[in-house]
Amino acid sequence: MQIDEEILSFIDKIDAALQSKVELFVDSSTSDLVSKKALDLIKESMNYSLCAGGKRIRPLLLLEIAKSYGADLNLAVEFAIAIEMIHTYSLIHDDLPSMDDDDLRRGKPTNHVVFGEDIAILAGDSLLNLSAEVMLNAVIKHHVELRNLKAMREILKASGPSGMILGQVADIKYHETEADRVQLDFINQNKTGKLLTASIIAGAYLGNASEDEITKLRTIGKDIGMLFQLVDDVLDVVGDEKKIGKRTQIDAKNNKCTYPSLLGLNETKKIIASLQAKLLADIELLEIDKTFLKSLVTFLATREF
Amino acid sequence: MQIDEEILSFIDKIDAALQSKVELFVDSSTSDLVSKKALDLIKESMNYSLCAGGKRIRPLLLLEIAKSYGADLNLAVEFAIAIEMIHTYSLIHDDLPSMDDDDLRRGKPTNHVVFGEDIAILAGDSLLNLSAEVMLNAVIKHHVELRNLKAMREILKASGPSGMILGQVADIKYHETEADRVQLDFINQNKTGKLLTASIIAGAYLGNASEDEITKLRTIGKDIGMLFQLVDDVLDVVGDEKKIGKRTQIDAKNNKCTYPSLLGLNETKKIIASLQAKLLADIELLEIDKTFLKSLVTFLATREF
Repeated sequence: MQIDEEILSFIDKIDAALQSKVELFVDSSTSDLVSKKALDLIKESMNYSLCAGGKRIRPLLLLEIAKSYGADLNLAVEFAIAIEMIHTYSLIHDDLPSMDDDDLRRGKPTNHVVFGEDIAILAGDSLLNLSAEVMLNAVIKHHVELRNLKAMREILKASGPSGMILGQVADIKYHETEADRVQLDFINQNKTGKLLTASIIAGAYLGNASEDEITKLRTIGKDIGMLFQLVDDVLDVVGDEKKIGKRTQIDAKNNKCTYPSLLGLNETKKIIASLQAKLLADIELLEIDKTFLKSLVTFLATREF
Repeated sequence: MQIDEEILSFIDKIDAALQSKVELFVDSSTSDLVSKKALDLIKESMNYSLCAGGKRIRPLLLLEIAKSYGADLNLAVEFAIAIEMIHTYSLIHDDLPSMDDDDLRRGKPTNHVVFGEDIAILAGDSLLNLSAEVMLNAVIKHHVELRNLKAMREILKASGPSGMILGQVADIKYHETEADRVQLDFINQNKTGKLLTASIIAGAYLGNASEDEITKLRTIGKDIGMLFQLVDDVLDVVGDEKKIGKRTQIDAKNNKCTYPSLLGLNETKKIIASLQAKLLADIELLEIDKTFLKSLVTFLATREF
């Protein structure tokens, strides 16, 4: 994937940036040792999942788009950190015993396996709360401007009960073998697509994109989300556990409806190829340098991990 | 308690206001019946706990203080709704089996008893997410101003891992019979005190309070939080289950350290009386009409439910 050098340096330092944000924001005046332990425990649990080495697709997308449209990168980085916090919180909660009951994530034991269910729930809550704090603080510090608040709203709307959480509810309740294509699309667009799209749209708002560009970007974001999920489903069937860093064949084991189980592996691969072509054509119509987005799409369509 | 007529009419309508906010914000385009069911389920679960009839102390505090300092009440109401959403989410998560494992709240079965643990966790997440959306939208709609963003920051800081969540972590991990006064104060200040204080400070920022007034209000907020908790602990020992709307003797059953268990019932009552006196004196120094705050303190100190 062709990533801008400046953005690459931010992504390389994202573990450190996430941890220092936790250190900066999570504090409480106490000289009592027992209270200090509680503070250290919640920070440790948050950092454990933040630094478990994800793909950082969302911060990458946000930063590249923000830069393309001329945003202040010092502000955009704060939003990139916030969106990764939201993504991480969603993974912690999704993995809980009462949800997907996963014990392995990114090659490491899941948060509740290490810290217990109670602390895992609270670490997730903390990351969601902190993400809003980080964005708001960044706006207050940099520029109290409508565009920046719209960027924040875009992310919050996508992560909430009209977006990611709704997708998870639909996934839990209705993601059964008899789900049809419409339902599967609904689950994936909400659970995965909207936050990926919000990474793009927030970046565009932080920059100076016109409403016309933003409309085009919404379609591109939706298709990138779909592409991402289609490939994820395929990898769960044919992927190498060591490369992906999570257990495969999980969907089949859980009897879950996926694109391959619904449409077959070949048909799914065909959809991936045509979605890739559509995306490359749509990206061509944007006003910005297309190098990153085009290479991202190719990467996503052909990734093995 | 002497509540301003205009504020009383807002509080009387808060159930409807909370529900209409959920209806307005939680939506997703779908014509699919199964997807619609997921949407209805998460809304139903959120509304169930929002409308379970709490005391609405936080919205009341925020609105009264906001009005005292001359805030736009149409804006303040949105913040009042948001803070009640945060309070409700914290109750849903605190009641979970892996946390306090409570089956009764405000006289009704707790959220997870009705909707299951998975949906209860997601309804809590939704309410936290939605609270930030509601505040942000209100600022965007009314006045994009630094004071209003500071009000929002005050609430988010208080509800997060430097505030309410930290208090819950400390409560879970260290709230054992051997906790001392310092630790008990730490738990209560974080778990209860900071969000109550934030209701006051956010109201003051939405109005036009000087930094000097805000400093005074921080002390008053902290003491109101402490008063609230002291009386709550006493009610758990001597209160009437039907009046309070939740089970009593829970602390003793769980072997939890409380003010009465640590200091004895009489000593706790003495602290309540002296805190009440200190609060009434401190409130006297404010620049605003003191009627509401003084009657609130007397109500909190002497309430039976």
